[in-house]
Amino acid sequence: MRLTRYFLPVLKETPADAQIPSHRLMLRAGMIRQSAAGIYSWLPFGYRVLQRIERIVHEEQQRAGHIPMLMPTLQSADLWKQSGRYDAYGPEMLRITDRHDREMLYGPTNEEMITDIVANYVTSYKALPLTLYHIQWKFRDEVRPRFGVMRGREFLMKDGYNFDLTKEAALHAYNRHLVSYLRTYERMGLQAIPMRADSGPIGGDYTHEFLVLAETGESEVFYDSEITDLRFGDRAIDYDNEAQCQAVLSEFTSRYARTDETHDEAAFDEVPEARRRTARGIEVGQIFYFGTDYSEKLGAFVQNEAGARVPLHMGSHGIGVSRLLGAIIEASHDDKGIIWPEGVAPFEVGLVNLRQGDASTDSACEGILRELEAKGLSVLYDDRDERAGGKFATMDLIGLPWRITVGPRGLANGMVELTSRRTGESEEMTPEWAIKRLSEIYAPHHAAALAI
Amino acid sequence: MRLTRYFLPVLKETPADAQIPSHRLMLRAGMIRQSAAGIYSWLPFGYRVLQRIERIVHEEQQRAGHIPMLMPTLQSADLWKQSGRYDAYGPEMLRITDRHDREMLYGPTNEEMITDIVANYVTSYKALPLTLYHIQWKFRDEVRPRFGVMRGREFLMKDGYNFDLTKEAALHAYNRHLVSYLRTYERMGLQAIPMRADSGPIGGDYTHEFLVLAETGESEVFYDSEITDLRFGDRAIDYDNEAQCQAVLSEFTSRYARTDETHDEAAFDEVPEARRRTARGIEVGQIFYFGTDYSEKLGAFVQNEAGARVPLHMGSHGIGVSRLLGAIIEASHDDKGIIWPEGVAPFEVGLVNLRQGDASTDSACEGILRELEAKGLSVLYDDRDERAGGKFATMDLIGLPWRITVGPRGLANGMVELTSRRTGESEEMTPEWAIKRLSEIYAPHHAAALAI
Repeated sequence: MRLTRYFLPVLKETPADAQIPSHRLMLRAGMIRQSAAGIYSWLPFGYRVLQRIERIVHEEQQRAGHIPMLMPTLQSADLWKQSGRYDAYGPEMLRITDRHDREMLYGPTNEEMITDIVANYVTSYKALPLTLYHIQWKFRDEVRPRFGVMRGREFLMKDGYNFDLTKEAALHAYNRHLVSYLRTYERMGLQAIPMRADSGPIGGDYTHEFLVLAETGESEVFYDSEITDLRFGDRAIDYDNEAQCQAVLSEFTSRYARTDETHDEAAFDEVPEARRRTARGIEVGQIFYFGTDYSEKLGAFVQNEAGARVPLHMGSHGIGVSRLLGAIIEASHDDKGIIWPEGVAPFEVGLVNLRQGDASTDSACEGILRELEAKGLSVLYDDRDERAGGKFATMDLIGLPWRITVGPRGLANGMVELTSRRTGESEEMTPEWAIKRLSEIYAPHHAAALAI
Repeated sequence: MRLTRYFLPVLKETPADAQIPSHRLMLRAGMIRQSAAGIYSWLPFGYRVLQRIERIVHEEQQRAGHIPMLMPTLQSADLWKQSGRYDAYGPEMLRITDRHDREMLYGPTNEEMITDIVANYVTSYKALPLTLYHIQWKFRDEVRPRFGVMRGREFLMKDGYNFDLTKEAALHAYNRHLVSYLRTYERMGLQAIPMRADSGPIGGDYTHEFLVLAETGESEVFYDSEITDLRFGDRAIDYDNEAQCQAVLSEFTSRYARTDETHDEAAFDEVPEARRRTARGIEVGQIFYFGTDYSEKLGAFVQNEAGARVPLHMGSHGIGVSRLLGAIIEASHDDKGIIWPEGVAPFEVGLVNLRQGDASTDSACEGILRELEAKGLSVLYDDRDERAGGKFATMDLIGLPWRITVGPRGLANGMVELTSRRTGESEEMTPEWAIKRLSEIYAPHHAAALAI
């Protein structure tokens, strides 16, 4: 993409009303624009990152065997009355009346609708196990929307629902989600720690929230420092293998890690003092096994092997897709701007032409652009007629992980400069070598992609 | 994808309330489920097609140089009051009041919002030309939603908006959209004819609707039969080249083609009688140049080269993404079910195992599945333990364009069967040959894809 043909309205000034770095940087980098309180337009650059994140979530869900579908944003109130949540849900639920005076709502979540769907089509245990998910816009009418996309009103969420014959099978689905979430967040360059969550009125031990450590997090968290040494890495997992998934869960949840909601001072005291940590975290996902509550209320029963009619064991599992952009920036920025992890970079390489209009510099840039794209790398080429300082400032602000700088002086020796946004370190090398290096850097990220 | 691990709830009975083939077939093939009047859940199989169509629209928009972004579903009423449309829009607009009693609405279209965005960021002619688009859910509170996704209330639409300095430049954007739409529909296996449309109160000659001929279409159409011989094909187009785009427009719009709204009996009579056709059509898109109306009302002005402040020339251009599924099925089905054109096939190949559980048949199927997927082809493998008749009926209903049938009798001679859904013709050949044939069939479709 050539910058002169793109729409990247970066702001010089820091917006006064944005209180946290991610909100400020998303506004400054031309990623979002507020259209109403807590409701944002995703400008082209922000939309690219949103798509990258959405894609990773899709790939990892499908790798785990979960099936994508799409439920609508608006729902009839009927099913919510059946589950009892229409009254229980407070003013955060946006209630709507249509032209025929029917009660509708903008879905904040989809337990009722998906249970109704499964109840209508699935009658036998033979169709199980089944996990369906979708990535769709939700609405919660927050009384004070703030922090940009971190606590917006219209937000994009992945919510998935498992349907299983037995509690045991549903707990495998729970573990499978935990494993897939670990992979998902790591591909985005995030460390998201599963922490024991509060299961609310339904009760039970089977719910974890995933938290990204960041000073601006809304939750206070308490954990054993050993947990931050854990990496999922590129281990091969057979998602059907119950023992393998269980082992990952044990590895990642056996150490103390809780939010203020579930914090237990006595248990925390058993962690060796040198490893006790208190910090702040951003919630980016939650998994929850809740049993047969919705199935019973909404009639999701199947015949089991013995011919008996039994309610399905369910869980729901969410990832805050639009919120993740904020979380990633909170975890990865400096005073110059955003630093995108390679896995979610909206463009993998920034190409800076130091002397736009100079025939040989232009032609070197065009050649590098062509070569990079031929290798499957996405490039933002700053082909504006602007000073080097302005170009570097834009690149630093928008945070592409790698930059190639091309100028007449370097070219005289056949050299360009490759710069890491994270370390700020630059190295002179031939264009061929820079392209080779970038291909190698991104190879594991491309290899992690799944054809879906 | 193995059918035993998928969620494809096909229905045996024809749903009584569905009046047109596409609605019936989408319900029977387990593609959609109504959750409220005119509001549908997209079950996994339907969602796959929706994604294919969305992807083609994205690719062709970006090939034409248009920039993707995403505006929210809910909008504040403020901008609509500024444009005068808040009152002008009837009860089709779903009006919503939030918890702070602010007037909101579920966007039926986005002229106001996008004009406001551009007005806020673009101040100079140097940022032009600019065309932004998004693919987002819209809502129109139809009084009588019907025909499934063809006239639903919540529907997915691509709407794009061009911003140009002069009328001339805006008309090039208009032509560019026309060309990109021709490519878009052809990739989906559709012939969509541009027909002179009614420009309404704004007036002007610059609007065309794209109509797919189908008996169940809601519009009556009148056209010169020569128009149905035109093909865009795989011609190379430079979308920046005004003369090239203009020539395509002339080629595709110089013959008589109008809907009942703009039909002119006298002009139609000038078409040689043997070429005069009356038929029915489904509207699947519209392009519209409307000048500076919104720019003036919402303050989208720039400095031109002479330093004067001038309003931007705009147009808006829509494609009915979710409706296209219905249109494709109306144009391409038979009494057994859907016949997907190759370009939008949810799975490119169906693989039928005639003797599930037989070691050598199973292993042959597994090998073929692996090979097809290695060649980048998507496969739905019917690995259920079911009679051949049931498997064929399912494959015919869901309409995958090509089927490989594997049974012990053929395998004894090293043969499988390759069947075209469209012609019903089958041919015996080796598995290797079938895989090669399918790769060749899909090669042009894969080549038409754009890395975006």
